[in-house]
Amino acid sequence: MEFRLDEGRAVLQRTPAVLHTLLGDLPDCWTAATEGPGAWSPFDVVGHLIHGERTDWVPRVEHLLRHGTTVPFDTFDRDAMFAASRGLSLHELLATFAALRRENLQRLDALGLTPADLDRRGLHPQLGVVTLRQHLATWIAHDLTHVGQAVRVMARQYAQAVGPWRAFLPQLGKE
Amino acid sequence: MEFRLDEGRAVLQRTPAVLHTLLGDLPDCWTAATEGPGAWSPFDVVGHLIHGERTDWVPRVEHLLRHGTTVPFDTFDRDAMFAASRGLSLHELLATFAALRRENLQRLDALGLTPADLDRRGLHPQLGVVTLRQHLATWIAHDLTHVGQAVRVMARQYAQAVGPWRAFLPQLGKE
Repeated sequence: MEFRLDEGRAVLQRTPAVLHTLLGDLPDCWTAATEGPGAWSPFDVVGHLIHGERTDWVPRVEHLLRHGTTVPFDTFDRDAMFAASRGLSLHELLATFAALRRENLQRLDALGLTPADLDRRGLHPQLGVVTLRQHLATWIAHDLTHVGQAVRVMARQYAQAVGPWRAFLPQLGKE
Repeated sequence: MEFRLDEGRAVLQRTPAVLHTLLGDLPDCWTAATEGPGAWSPFDVVGHLIHGERTDWVPRVEHLLRHGTTVPFDTFDRDAMFAASRGLSLHELLATFAALRRENLQRLDALGLTPADLDRRGLHPQLGVVTLRQHLATWIAHDLTHVGQAVRVMARQYAQAVGPWRAFLPQLGKE
């Protein structure tokens, strides 16, 4: 499927509400669960998405439009949320994510990107030359894969509890 | 994690709203997308969950309580939704799923299951003897894996569009 800004935006706009509906007021046994030591909980996923709003998605759009391929993007810190989320409740994180996403979509809309703009190129510190279209498509795919991660982490908490049904649920991981 | 009815119920109760928030009014390019011929779209996933409400989860609870291991459950038809969903809108499916889930949780609550009841055993036509606890845990894990399937199918529509970022997003599948 080709990237289209309106279709992609429709997904981006929903993600905070999807996570709020999935995780809001859910017992901690689900939201703090991980797949093992050092792995991410649904709580950590929300913190990671917040960090992306602050330093990655729209900031990099603006960086690309300003600098093209002359200055690489700043490197993204995948682990920043472990410190940034400390002491905060999931409720606070969900509200912060929703506010930042709303703000960032307004900034995106204000740019009035044209199809020609989507071909503009920037420089990723690891991946090299990328287009604005690829960057924006990644924003959407990234949202979806992290929602998928949150539900996978939750599902796997019952990997033992389902007993013999595990044979029918490969998503719960190997025994 | 051990299965607990109250914790599991908290997930079951949210699933219709999660799918409504994720998919409601989203362009068809997302909700009708699949990972290939014969694979399920998010639309098909909702139909499958409806069929589970009608023939699997609570009906099998009642069957188990009535028959124990003397009569196996009816076999579940994984493909029933292809015919059952034909001609219906996603909006109709989401509303039907929400209504059936609400009703089934009321039926479940009305049973007033005790911890001892959760140890009661039934007979699965393929898996053999299973406990009520395992059956209920599977209901929750099944919800979550299908929400995960819907977002994975959506994310993979941009497997090409993300360009070089695919290297960072293994969830989009191999090239």
